[in-house]
Amino acid sequence: MRVRNKPWAREMLDSHPEYVIPSPEENKGKWNSVFEKDQPLHIEVGTGKGRFITEMAKANPHINYIGIELFDSVIVSALERLTEAKLPNLKLLNVNAEKLTDIFAKGEVNRVYLNFSDPWPKTRHAKRRLTYKTFLKLYEDILVEKGELHFKTDNQGLFEFSLLSFSEYGLLLKYISLDLHNSDFEGNIMTEYEEKFSQQGSRIYRCEVQYP
Amino acid sequence: MRVRNKPWAREMLDSHPEYVIPSPEENKGKWNSVFEKDQPLHIEVGTGKGRFITEMAKANPHINYIGIELFDSVIVSALERLTEAKLPNLKLLNVNAEKLTDIFAKGEVNRVYLNFSDPWPKTRHAKRRLTYKTFLKLYEDILVEKGELHFKTDNQGLFEFSLLSFSEYGLLLKYISLDLHNSDFEGNIMTEYEEKFSQQGSRIYRCEVQYP
Ligand SMILES: C[S@@+](CC[C@H](N)C(=O)[O-])C[C@H]1O[C@@H](n2cnc3c(N)ncnc32)[C@H](O)[C@@H]1O
Ligand SMILES: C[S@@+](CC[C@H](N)C(=O)[O-])C[C@H]1O[C@@H](n2cnc3c(N)ncnc32)[C@H](O)[C@@H]1O
Repeated sequence: MRVRNKPWAREMLDSHPEYVIPSPEENKGKWNSVFEKDQPLHIEVGTGKGRFITEMAKANPHINYIGIELFDSVIVSALERLTEAKLPNLKLLNVNAEKLTDIFAKGEVNRVYLNFSDPWPKTRHAKRRLTYKTFLKLYEDILVEKGELHFKTDNQGLFEFSLLSFSEYGLLLKYISLDLHNSDFEGNIMTEYEEKFSQQGSRIYRCEVQYP
Repeated sequence: MRVRNKPWAREMLDSHPEYVIPSPEENKGKWNSVFEKDQPLHIEVGTGKGRFITEMAKANPHINYIGIELFDSVIVSALERLTEAKLPNLKLLNVNAEKLTDIFAKGEVNRVYLNFSDPWPKTRHAKRRLTYKTFLKLYEDILVEKGELHFKTDNQGLFEFSLLSFSEYGLLLKYISLDLHNSDFEGNIMTEYEEKFSQQGSRIYRCEVQYP
């Protein structure tokens, strides 16, 4: 994601430890005590500016959410939304998803969302795609049994790659739409990228896969 | 497929037993002796007018092909192509694919092609789709180990259903294109339906799955 450098972002994130959790590794295995309620935990990897995860948290108070985003200059927009909405069931982490297993214990997460992940179209960059097998392993190592991964993208190449990667990894395809916005899927919550790309006429692809 | 009734079709098919094999069950387990050469066997289920299978047989003399089509008034067009091309590695069967296991022994077939199969869009007709689990079982019962099923269609709903059905059945997705005619797939041979629908602007979907 191309964003202007925002020198004040770091400071703003640090000043809201109730929303942007500092040293998240310290909560490994006890995330439920960080939230008001002990209930299922869904995370989004690559949250961006946070519209999806904020709206999901509003719509589903019976679920705890964590949005994970690498760039402070991006996640700061999610924090702005959250300070306004004051949701008790949403936290943010400004970390690299490669650290997932340092942050969550096995079985601590019930669902992983990936929305409009960076496509990394060059074959030599395939390992960076968030649906590459090494990432699928990280998700497996924090998910419950039969935990699910829900994935949306406008990028045809990334979606094709991901379906192959899921199958190769042994995940069960539970849902697929090759044109989400013209399907009968109900209650879709659009992300920032989804709105932009669908307005430009791109099809949106979506699938759900389940771990064994 | 909507076709005019052709009363002469039956007679024409019967007059070419060298191409349209009568009583195919009698060759179960010994199909290679029906062909000039003992080589891998690929079948197409729902061959229609036969353009795909005829062109495949021309392009791949090292493979034996069998085209299977239910309607005599349709397969007669495939026979016309074949009497002209006089290919030693292509035979036709005017039978219902439900009989596959009466006709082929386990391991006798190396690959199954499905092209633009009837979509049967109503949920209550799902069992008729050629990618429904009962058909996947029939193909398994005639294929070699690690045998493949190659599938093309313009029908988004049928393609989505089929991907779910393949995954549920435990098949491995080896190849997928969500826009075949704008992909780098080489040597695509168009079927009659493919030409018609792609000229109308439809996307063509294609995948390859492998049995265990
Ligand atoms: C293309 S944007 C999509 C943002 C948002 N999900 C949406 O749909 O609008 C992808 C985001 O994923 C983040 N990202 C990529 N790799 C990451 C990683 N390893 N850990 C955390 N975030 C990552 C990027 O910084 C970027 O903000
Ligand atoms: C939509 S057409 C496609 C024909 C051709 N594959 C093409 O792409 O041009 C589907 C064909 O499958 C045949 N078919 C459907 N069910 C069948 C079955 N159970 N056994 C044999 N043929 C079948 C139909 O008769 C029809 O000709």
